[in-house]
Amino acid sequence: MKALVYDGPGRRSWTDHADPELTASTDAIVRVDAVTICGTDLHILKGDVPEVERGRILGHEAVGTIVETGSAVTGVKSGDKVLVSCISACGRCEYCRKAAYGQCLGGGGWILGHTTDGVQAEYARVPFADTSTYVLPSGVSDESALMLADIVPTSYEVGVRNGGVKPGDTVVIVGAGPIGLAAITNAQLFAPSTIIVVDREPARLDAAKSFGADVLVQPGDAAAAVAEASGGLGADVAIEAVGVPETFELCAKLVRPGGHVANVGVHGAPATLHLEQLWIKNVTITTGLVDTSSTPMLLRMLAAGRLDTSRFVTHRFGLDEMDEAYDVFAHPQDSNALKVALFRS
Amino acid sequence: MKALVYDGPGRRSWTDHADPELTASTDAIVRVDAVTICGTDLHILKGDVPEVERGRILGHEAVGTIVETGSAVTGVKSGDKVLVSCISACGRCEYCRKAAYGQCLGGGGWILGHTTDGVQAEYARVPFADTSTYVLPSGVSDESALMLADIVPTSYEVGVRNGGVKPGDTVVIVGAGPIGLAAITNAQLFAPSTIIVVDREPARLDAAKSFGADVLVQPGDAAAAVAEASGGLGADVAIEAVGVPETFELCAKLVRPGGHVANVGVHGAPATLHLEQLWIKNVTITTGLVDTSSTPMLLRMLAAGRLDTSRFVTHRFGLDEMDEAYDVFAHPQDSNALKVALFRS
Repeated sequence: MKALVYDGPGRRSWTDHADPELTASTDAIVRVDAVTICGTDLHILKGDVPEVERGRILGHEAVGTIVETGSAVTGVKSGDKVLVSCISACGRCEYCRKAAYGQCLGGGGWILGHTTDGVQAEYARVPFADTSTYVLPSGVSDESALMLADIVPTSYEVGVRNGGVKPGDTVVIVGAGPIGLAAITNAQLFAPSTIIVVDREPARLDAAKSFGADVLVQPGDAAAAVAEASGGLGADVAIEAVGVPETFELCAKLVRPGGHVANVGVHGAPATLHLEQLWIKNVTITTGLVDTSSTPMLLRMLAAGRLDTSRFVTHRFGLDEMDEAYDVFAHPQDSNALKVALFRS
Repeated sequence: MKALVYDGPGRRSWTDHADPELTASTDAIVRVDAVTICGTDLHILKGDVPEVERGRILGHEAVGTIVETGSAVTGVKSGDKVLVSCISACGRCEYCRKAAYGQCLGGGGWILGHTTDGVQAEYARVPFADTSTYVLPSGVSDESALMLADIVPTSYEVGVRNGGVKPGDTVVIVGAGPIGLAAITNAQLFAPSTIIVVDREPARLDAAKSFGADVLVQPGDAAAAVAEASGGLGADVAIEAVGVPETFELCAKLVRPGGHVANVGVHGAPATLHLEQLWIKNVTITTGLVDTSSTPMLLRMLAAGRLDTSRFVTHRFGLDEMDEAYDVFAHPQDSNALKVALFRS
């Protein structure tokens, strides 16, 4: 088969690779029908995620068709169309028992395209298939489900749910990439009064507007916009969706006493926490890798037409156009790409 | 009357002062029967809390007897023995409506001995008396109730409740001063499996042992002790009860994936937040000034004999021995003082 292989910092190739095989009785083999690229894949290619070894097939977001299952798999069968989640879960360890699948101690967590071969390939081995894949409801397209492999549950759980967004809130989202845009969609489920989106790129602010954000501002104007929307109190919830110290620190500045800072960004450097101001403010700061405990609910919402994921994919490719898709996704300032999707022809 | 007056950084005096008078219809005047000194008062004397003006009477923890009430006060009357809480609450603003009294927007919050005259005096004006004083249940002594003016609800709400301590947890408390010791007592209400206390001072670790801590360690041994108690996972809850960057950063290091860091300490400087490690760990960090929403419950627990506050006070004085009490409390390394209490003779 063909697969996208990481060849060390700065190098990738869409190349011939041995087909995956079942290695545990809980595995399934999936034929990849639709796959996307994540900002995290670009971090890996920069060398920011050192535990990814050379030769690793990347990718952790796919929709596919089961073609083979191990003897212990009982929940999915050959021919089933499934969402392959970015999080694999043994379903049995102390963390999985608490629905904290992202922190699975039994060999799961974020493993696909990270510590085991991923889904940017024609076929993929999916460990713990019963607790890591989701049969698509009828009427749900591959492309719309594909957004539920990572970005929609991540922004829902780590951004909106951890942040505790509730009716009437002033919500500020810093960063209008795919995760920040998904956070707009998810925050709207909880009826906040105002959603303010902060980004440097005018094109991303335009995208945020099309997703339904109420106020669009550059970073330097964020404090004034939040103050105006909140009667001077600050944001109830500040969602960090970039992953650099400056944006985290901006969130900590924008939040009101008693408010929440929900960090979603993948960070490579420490930030300064101004405890000399924050100790008295009763703030809650959360971080997180997605658990995907919300994935079944989000799929139901998608099937019911209550969740719209149609605005994310801006560029579509055939699976064998992987190199071109990476180039487009890696240069959003030229391409205006949000999410790219690649489909088996 | 006599009162303890702040005369600018490094200077205080127990001196003659005009008696307090009612200035609002919701005020009460309280005769102070028992009062204590807080570590925060020492911070003020160092000049760390610049909003405290020269001439301010310090103190925010007292038990007293109502001697006069404004015309709008209906919940307490002359002769009532009351706890005067460190937090005053208008009871009407947006924050008070959510029980977030510490963030009161209507003129309350932490005001006594801060932005208005406090209770280290023979008499004190208590604003918002109906929502800021608590009639003592019968059988509860002045001294035991006095511990509920600040340290017990602070460690309960900001440490144990914000931290989400629950049965079976590995809890680490960094700092064994009065707040850290109170956190031991409060954590025990939730049946954790192990309480580990970290401090540099052997005498404070001895005190922590007498309060019921299971494991007592120096900071350098904390990581190993937590690992041993938790099967290598880390602490479910790390409570910061000092207020310097090093102890906060230690807490962030000791917490397990999915765990909580509850900051209780009063900080004067920023800390480093290692988001490059924490982003993926699903941690929750909370800060806070106490709301005292738990004060009625804690008083009930005290009256029922389910909460023991008898171990905090190590040194007792007459009210006119204020200078000596400050000296003893400010030098715990010499005096082994935990809390001091001063009583009207």
